[in-house]
Amino acid sequence: MELEFITWLRERTGRQPHLPLGLGDDAAILQLAEQNDLVLTSDLLTEDVHFRLTQCTPQQVGYKALAVNLSDLAAMAARPITALVSIALPRQLAPQLAREIYEGLLSLASQFNVTLAGGDTNCWEGPLVINVALVGQTTSRGPLTRGGAQPGDQLLVTGELGGSLAGRHASFTPRVREALLLHECYTLSAGIDLSDGLALDASRMARESGCGMALEMTAIPISTEARQMARQQPARSPLERALSDGEDFELLLAVPPDQADRLLADQPLKIPLVRIGQCVEQAGLWQRNPDGSLAALSPRGYEH
Amino acid sequence: MELEFITWLRERTGRQPHLPLGLGDDAAILQLAEQNDLVLTSDLLTEDVHFRLTQCTPQQVGYKALAVNLSDLAAMAARPITALVSIALPRQLAPQLAREIYEGLLSLASQFNVTLAGGDTNCWEGPLVINVALVGQTTSRGPLTRGGAQPGDQLLVTGELGGSLAGRHASFTPRVREALLLHECYTLSAGIDLSDGLALDASRMARESGCGMALEMTAIPISTEARQMARQQPARSPLERALSDGEDFELLLAVPPDQADRLLADQPLKIPLVRIGQCVEQAGLWQRNPDGSLAALSPRGYEH
Repeated sequence: MELEFITWLRERTGRQPHLPLGLGDDAAILQLAEQNDLVLTSDLLTEDVHFRLTQCTPQQVGYKALAVNLSDLAAMAARPITALVSIALPRQLAPQLAREIYEGLLSLASQFNVTLAGGDTNCWEGPLVINVALVGQTTSRGPLTRGGAQPGDQLLVTGELGGSLAGRHASFTPRVREALLLHECYTLSAGIDLSDGLALDASRMARESGCGMALEMTAIPISTEARQMARQQPARSPLERALSDGEDFELLLAVPPDQADRLLADQPLKIPLVRIGQCVEQAGLWQRNPDGSLAALSPRGYEH
Repeated sequence: MELEFITWLRERTGRQPHLPLGLGDDAAILQLAEQNDLVLTSDLLTEDVHFRLTQCTPQQVGYKALAVNLSDLAAMAARPITALVSIALPRQLAPQLAREIYEGLLSLASQFNVTLAGGDTNCWEGPLVINVALVGQTTSRGPLTRGGAQPGDQLLVTGELGGSLAGRHASFTPRVREALLLHECYTLSAGIDLSDGLALDASRMARESGCGMALEMTAIPISTEARQMARQQPARSPLERALSDGEDFELLLAVPPDQADRLLADQPLKIPLVRIGQCVEQAGLWQRNPDGSLAALSPRGYEH
């Protein structure tokens, strides 16, 4: 299968900028146009953990495998460049499954000007596994990190949270353009993408920044899907879903107060950007009570 | 598991050059010391295809996962820099299995000055899967590729071939240092690492170079293991094993005749370097008969 498949991939991808050698050698050569630092990330998706082939099309699996990596680069406010893709295919479904996965992946790649540097396609007796490693570069503003939040910073979030399992987890738009625009035009202290739920990811940003995060429950934007799912399964409220369903892949940003005021007034994105809390001195994750006091909040994110 | 595991990995790796952010953010920042082109590769190893946990230790699995990628960079005569590691662990064996895999991987990484940029460690109900994506750089001599061989070039191979399944497939030394030395001191036309067997990999080099490869059967260096295995399983001769067992991870080089003469006389490596044939005009893979004529040779490599 390998030669025929590489031939198909070569035709499908065509000539790619910055990759003079094309696909099929032992490794790819990448010629960088700029000299900024590289940004590297890698995510492995496994069947029945990150997706189910009974609920997602193979195209969606390929889409998601790249999208979660693009979301990681968005969290760093980095510009994506090129991807390496590795797939282990259930033997009876190859090679058709591989082509469909690549169709979904490459459609997203073209939206973000990401080239395909290469990869590794194998068959085995196990379930479907796909790994994407993504290479990007920082802009001249340097990287955004998890560790820069300071007490007093405002916490802002893009989009709406919860209920991603209704379908958004495999069709979301990674917030790359949004992160680049915000990082370019405003001063941001810290950023993280919400992969495992607002509560858990906010607690991670708090830990890396050495401060605390106080969330205002009434300000958290709850998605329509989270409300619908809560009606069908009342054991978990819409708010709980927004806090801990995970796989929202929205951005959580810590922003100095003056910049946050300007940002919230400008609303420069095509998606909502709302204030959901504040960074505080006290380490840990908190909810702010109506009287202004803080109560501990459990980082109940979805951990794979 | 994730936080505790990242804490362990951070302690295990310590401060790493060129990675100012350390492990644990959404992505790694890599500061390059030089401005040569990047070289990127990625390989996915799956249980019971690339290794068996009944025959390999977890340390060997981690070692092999990095080593196969180092071998790809050796084939390009590139200098390895940093690795991204993704692991899907059988749930009942984690996290102990993850640590043992990393011990093997990091011991090899330190031998080749490869840092750990990050990765992704998950549990699932499936078998063990490990992906390594490796980032390197070309030297000032540029990359060595599969496509540069020309009729008249001599074919040289490092080491001895066949029988890797006796153990060498998970403990081989990737020929990074050898490739860098040869590429620096001699003019090489093309190179490939022997991952799927001399016959198949030679036919790949032939195809990418647009010429043919004529092998001299009596010159092919056969390993002790290949001879032992052929005694135990006489259905396949030592030569057949050297041609097609695969996973030798030695280098096959096409070298202009004058350079080949100098190289063979110098023997600049600590391992043998022998001439096994020649590039010819006629496309395809050939064996040279005693009378000098060519007979077609099947590219009977081991295709995963």
